[in-house]
Amino acid sequence: MKVTLRTDVLTNNNKAAEFNRQQFTETKTLVINLMSSPGAGKTTLLEETVKALAGKYRVAVIEGDLATEKDADRIRALGAQAVQINTHGGCHLDARMVAATLGEFDLDEIDILFIENVGNLVCPSGYDLGQNHKVAVLSVPEGNDKIPKYPTMFMRTELVLLNKIDLLPYLDFDVDVAREDLLAINPISGLLPLSASTKVGMDEWFTWIDQAYQTCIQS
Amino acid sequence: MKVTLRTDVLTNNNKAAEFNRQQFTETKTLVINLMSSPGAGKTTLLEETVKALAGKYRVAVIEGDLATEKDADRIRALGAQAVQINTHGGCHLDARMVAATLGEFDLDEIDILFIENVGNLVCPSGYDLGQNHKVAVLSVPEGNDKIPKYPTMFMRTELVLLNKIDLLPYLDFDVDVAREDLLAINPISGLLPLSASTKVGMDEWFTWIDQAYQTCIQS
Repeated sequence: MKVTLRTDVLTNNNKAAEFNRQQFTETKTLVINLMSSPGAGKTTLLEETVKALAGKYRVAVIEGDLATEKDADRIRALGAQAVQINTHGGCHLDARMVAATLGEFDLDEIDILFIENVGNLVCPSGYDLGQNHKVAVLSVPEGNDKIPKYPTMFMRTELVLLNKIDLLPYLDFDVDVAREDLLAINPISGLLPLSASTKVGMDEWFTWIDQAYQTCIQS
Repeated sequence: MKVTLRTDVLTNNNKAAEFNRQQFTETKTLVINLMSSPGAGKTTLLEETVKALAGKYRVAVIEGDLATEKDADRIRALGAQAVQINTHGGCHLDARMVAATLGEFDLDEIDILFIENVGNLVCPSGYDLGQNHKVAVLSVPEGNDKIPKYPTMFMRTELVLLNKIDLLPYLDFDVDVAREDLLAINPISGLLPLSASTKVGMDEWFTWIDQAYQTCIQS
C-alpha cells in the first residue's frame, strides 16, 4: 500500500499523528519510537536489532538527525530500508515529518518500523508520532541522576533500555537506583539493562519486541 | 552591586542578553555558558573546577535543569554560591531566566560565573545568555559522530572540552577524527581532551580560564 498524504496532515501534528497511526494500524505495522540523549547508543542498538530480527520480521527504519545521512547509511549497510529525516537544527521529529516519509515505504511489506528520534532527552518526549510504543534508551556513562533530572522523558515511556552495562565496572552507576527512580515517576515502565555491543540482555529486548508485535497484529 | 530588572528584559531574549552582558561587563565578571548532552559530565567538571579555582577566584554557578536541585546542591557542598533554575520541561536556559536570577548574586564579589545549561546538544546553542564564552562539553562515550551530527552546537562554541578520556581504552573513539570534524565546521574553536575524574588535561582548562579572565578584566 502506498500512502497518499492529505494537506491537513502536514499542518497539524496531532492530525498527522492520527494519520500515521491509521496507516500503521491498517497495515498491522508495529512502530517503535526510540528516544535518548545523543550518544546513548540508539543506532548501535538498532544495528544489532536489525541483524537479529532479519529473517523473522521485515524491518525498516526512519532515522532522525539534525544533519548527515550517517545513521541511515549504517542501517542500509545491513540490507534494511532506511529513510533519513534531517531536521536542519530542529530538536525532535514530529508526526508531520514522519508522515512525509511514509510514501517511501510499502507498509504492507513491513512488520516493524523503528523510528530513531533526534538525540535529545527533552524535546522528542512531547511529540506523538503515531507510534505504538515509546522506548527510551539511557546509557550507563550518562550517570545515575538522569531519570529524576529529565522526568518529562521517562514518565512517558513504556520501556527504558539501560544500555552500555559493559561499562558498569568502570563507572559509578547503580542499576537499582535507576530502577527506583523510574518506578517513582512511572510505575508502568520496565527497565531493561543490556549492552548492544556485548549483546548481554539483548534477548530480553527481542522478547519484548515479539510480544509487542503479537499484540499489534492481534488488535 | 545588586541588580534591578527592567520589565522589557523579561519579555525579550535579546534585550535580556544585552542586559545581562551589561551587568557582567560593568562588574568585570567572566561568564562561561557550559553546554552538552545529558551526562557528558558538566557538573563533575564544574565541581573539580570550583575546587581548583578556590582561593584564586571568587566563583559562582547558575545551574539549569528541567527539575531537581541536585546540581546546585553539589556545587553548594563545595562552599560556592549556586542558584538553581528549573525550566519545568524547557529544553534550554534563556537570557530572561538568567536575568531573573541576577538579583541573588552580588556580581561585584564574583570573578567568574559559570552557567551550566540544560543537558541538551541542540536547543541551548541558539540562545545568547549574555555570556563571554560558549564552551561545549563532548564526552568520549557519546561517540565519534556527534560533531557532524549536531553542527548547530559545535559551530557556535569557542572551546570544546572532550571529557572522559579515561574511557578511551574501552571505547572506539578517535580524538584526531573529532579534531578534524570540529575544524571542518568551526576553524576557531579549540578541542581540549581531559578527564574531570582523573584530572588529566584539567590544568590546560584552568589555563584557558586564566586567559579568558585576564581578557575580561582588561576589556
